[in-house]
Amino acid sequence: MKFFRIVSAAALRETIRETFGAFRLSAETVPLRSAASRVLASDMISPEDAPAFDRSQVDGYALPSASTTGATESIPSVFRLAGRVKMGEAATVTADTVSCIYVPTGAMMPGGADCAAKIEDCEELPDGMIAVFRPHSPGENVLRRGDDCREGMLVLAKGSVLFPRRIAPLAALGFMEIPVVRKPRYAVVSTGDEIVPEGIPPAPGQIRDSNAPSLAAMTEAMGGEISGFSRSNDDENSLLQVLREAVESSDCVLVSGGSSVGERDHVRRVIGELPGSRILAHGVGLKPGKPAIVASLPGGKAVFGLPGHPASSAAVFLALVGAYHESVTGQTEAPARTVRARLDGSLRSSAGMETWQPCTLSEQNSELIATPLFGRSGSVTLFSRADGFLVLPPEVEGLENGADVSVRLL
Amino acid sequence: MKFFRIVSAAALRETIRETFGAFRLSAETVPLRSAASRVLASDMISPEDAPAFDRSQVDGYALPSASTTGATESIPSVFRLAGRVKMGEAATVTADTVSCIYVPTGAMMPGGADCAAKIEDCEELPDGMIAVFRPHSPGENVLRRGDDCREGMLVLAKGSVLFPRRIAPLAALGFMEIPVVRKPRYAVVSTGDEIVPEGIPPAPGQIRDSNAPSLAAMTEAMGGEISGFSRSNDDENSLLQVLREAVESSDCVLVSGGSSVGERDHVRRVIGELPGSRILAHGVGLKPGKPAIVASLPGGKAVFGLPGHPASSAAVFLALVGAYHESVTGQTEAPARTVRARLDGSLRSSAGMETWQPCTLSEQNSELIATPLFGRSGSVTLFSRADGFLVLPPEVEGLENGADVSVRLL
Repeated sequence: MKFFRIVSAAALRETIRETFGAFRLSAETVPLRSAASRVLASDMISPEDAPAFDRSQVDGYALPSASTTGATESIPSVFRLAGRVKMGEAATVTADTVSCIYVPTGAMMPGGADCAAKIEDCEELPDGMIAVFRPHSPGENVLRRGDDCREGMLVLAKGSVLFPRRIAPLAALGFMEIPVVRKPRYAVVSTGDEIVPEGIPPAPGQIRDSNAPSLAAMTEAMGGEISGFSRSNDDENSLLQVLREAVESSDCVLVSGGSSVGERDHVRRVIGELPGSRILAHGVGLKPGKPAIVASLPGGKAVFGLPGHPASSAAVFLALVGAYHESVTGQTEAPARTVRARLDGSLRSSAGMETWQPCTLSEQNSELIATPLFGRSGSVTLFSRADGFLVLPPEVEGLENGADVSVRLL
Repeated sequence: MKFFRIVSAAALRETIRETFGAFRLSAETVPLRSAASRVLASDMISPEDAPAFDRSQVDGYALPSASTTGATESIPSVFRLAGRVKMGEAATVTADTVSCIYVPTGAMMPGGADCAAKIEDCEELPDGMIAVFRPHSPGENVLRRGDDCREGMLVLAKGSVLFPRRIAPLAALGFMEIPVVRKPRYAVVSTGDEIVPEGIPPAPGQIRDSNAPSLAAMTEAMGGEISGFSRSNDDENSLLQVLREAVESSDCVLVSGGSSVGERDHVRRVIGELPGSRILAHGVGLKPGKPAIVASLPGGKAVFGLPGHPASSAAVFLALVGAYHESVTGQTEAPARTVRARLDGSLRSSAGMETWQPCTLSEQNSELIATPLFGRSGSVTLFSRADGFLVLPPEVEGLENGADVSVRLL
C-alpha cells in the first residue's frame, strides 16, 4: 500500500505537541471532592501560612529552650506545670523561665515557649513540677507558622495532575472550588462493513465491535470523556457524514478499524475531505500501528485513524493519542508508568520502527522479568493478558535474552 | 504509649486476608460499558468459538495450499480469479485447484481454500489470472475458527480486574452484562477537637480537615465507594454514636486522625466498644503508621484507625486497607505498581519495622532513581510531591547510596 506520508513516531509526537499544544481547552470549576485525577487549570497560590500557628510536634511540655541549658539526667531543669493547652483551642496560658505548659501533638504553642520537650525526656515530679533531663534548642519539636507553606507560595502549578496525594494540601489550605481543565471529549467511530454493534448477533462473515468499548475504556482511564459512539459502513458519503457529526460533537475523533488496505485508504481519503483537514501523518514508524492516520482540524480538533487489532490499537492510542491528550489539557506530568525489566527471551524488531511488543511482567528473585507475548494477528484475547508494552526505539534492531528493557505499564 | 498488641505488617496483612477473605461482597450486573476497573464476580466462559469462521489475516487470494507446491518466482502456480469475498458477507464463491478467490484482511475464507497468499507474493496477470510465486502451507495467513478462543474456554477468571485491555475480548464474544463484585463502601470519620470541616474558617488552634478528602480520593482510586463523611470531637459518647452510624452505612470505616497519644487511645477504646468488635492490631510494625488500629466487626465489616499525617495515613492505607479491599472483593490481581530503582542517598530504617519512605522518581541514563523526600513531621505539602514509597522490609536496617530498592508507585 502507498502511505501518504511516513514519519517516525518520535517526530510525529513532536508534531502533535506543536500542533495541538497551541490550543488549550477551557477551564471549569469543580468542588475539591470531585477534583481527583483532573488537570489543574491555574497555579494554586497559598492564601495563608500553613500551619497558621506554631504547633507542637510531640506530646510534651512547651517551655523556653534557654531555661534547659545544661540540663542532664542528674541535674535536670525543673519547671512548674502552669497549665495545659487543649487541642483545637487557642493557647491562653503562657510559659516562662520557670513555668511550662502541657501540649498534646498538634496543639497550639503557648506564648513564652520556643520549644517542646517530649514527655519521654521529662518526668512529672510529685509536687506538680516537671523535670527536663536534657537541653533543648530553639524551635525543637515545633512546626512554626508557615514552616510548611507561606502565604503567596506556589502550592501546585498549572498543568499538575490532581493525584490523590495532591488533595490534602489543597484541603488544608481551604481551597474548595478547584479550577481544572475541562475533560477532552472523544467521539468513537467504528468503521468496517463486517462490524455489527453490540446486541446484534453477527451473521457469517460479520464480527462484533470490540474496538469501540475498548477505546472508550482506554480514553476514560486517560482522563477523557466519551461524547458518543457512531458507526459507518465503507460507503464514502456515509462515513463523511458520520465523521462530520463526530467532529461537531467532540474535540477528537477516534476512527476505529479497517484492517484491510481498501478500508484504510478509504478512511484516509474521507478524513482528508473534512473541512480544513490537515493530514499530519498517514503511515507512522510504529510497529504495530504503521497505518495510523493523524489529522488536525480547525480549532485544535483532531482525528486519529486507529488500526483494528487490539494490540495495534492500544499501541497507537498510548503512543500518539496520549500525546494529543497531554497537549490540549496542558498536562505537564503523568503517573510513573515506565519500568525497567529483564527480557525473558530474545526479540527482533523492524529497523527504523519504534516497536511496541506486548509482554507480561513477573518478579523473580526481586527482579522484574518481561516476557514477550506472541500470538496470531487478529487475536482478541491475546492482548488482554498483557501487563505492558516492551518499547524498542527505532535504532534497536533486536535484543538478546537477558537484555535490560523499558516497559510501558498498561 | 502502650500498644494493645503489636504485630508485624506482613503478619497483619495475613490476618486481614484470613479474617476478611472469608466474607465476599455480593455480585451485581453492570453493562460492559461501565465495567472497566471492576472486579469480575464469576468466571467468564466463552459462549462460542472466536473467530466464529475462518478469517484471512491478509489482503490476498484464498486458494488450496496443495496447488502451490513447488511454486517459484520463475515457475509460479497460476489460478483463475473466480470471485471476491466482501467484508462482512458470507463467502458464497469457492476456490478449487485452479481457481482462487480475492479476500481482504478479516474476510471469511471461501470453501475450497485452506490458505491465503498475500498480494505481495502474487501478481495479477493481464488475462485475469493470478500467479503465486511461492509454496504455501495449510492454514497459512488464516485465523481458523476457534483459534483465538473455543466455546467453553475460560476467557477471564473470577477475581480478575477489568482493566481497559480486558474489555475487547468480552465485547468480541458478545458479553453485554457483566457480573462484578459490588464496590466496597467506605465511611470516613474525622476525629479530633482541632479539626474543622470544609467551609469553616479555622479559629486559632484549629486546622482544616485535609485527611477526609484525601482518604476519599485514595479510596475511589482503589475501586471503593464513599458512603459518607462524618466527624466527631473527642467525646467518647459522641464518637461511639458516630462510629455506630458509620458502621451501619458502610462495609469499612476509616477513622482518620488523632496525632496525640490521648486521641489515639481514645479512638482505640471506642472502636473496642463497638458491638462484636475484635481488635486485630493496635500497634503495627510499620513506619510511619505504628499507631494504626485494625478491628473486625460481625459480617466481615472492618474499622481502620489511621494516623493523622498525610504520608502516615497513605502508608497505612496502601499497606493495610488495600489488603482488606482485595480480600472482600476477591480481587486476585492488581495493576503492576512496584518498580526497582537505584537509591539516591542513604537511608536509615528502624529495626523490626517495615519502613515506607516517601520518595520522588526520576530517570537518569535510562535508569530509575529514587530520592527520599525528608521533611518535618506534620507537613501537608511534602507528601504531595512524592511519586512513590521506598518500601524496606523489617530485616533491612539501612541502605547505602546506590542500593537497588523497591518502590511502590503512588
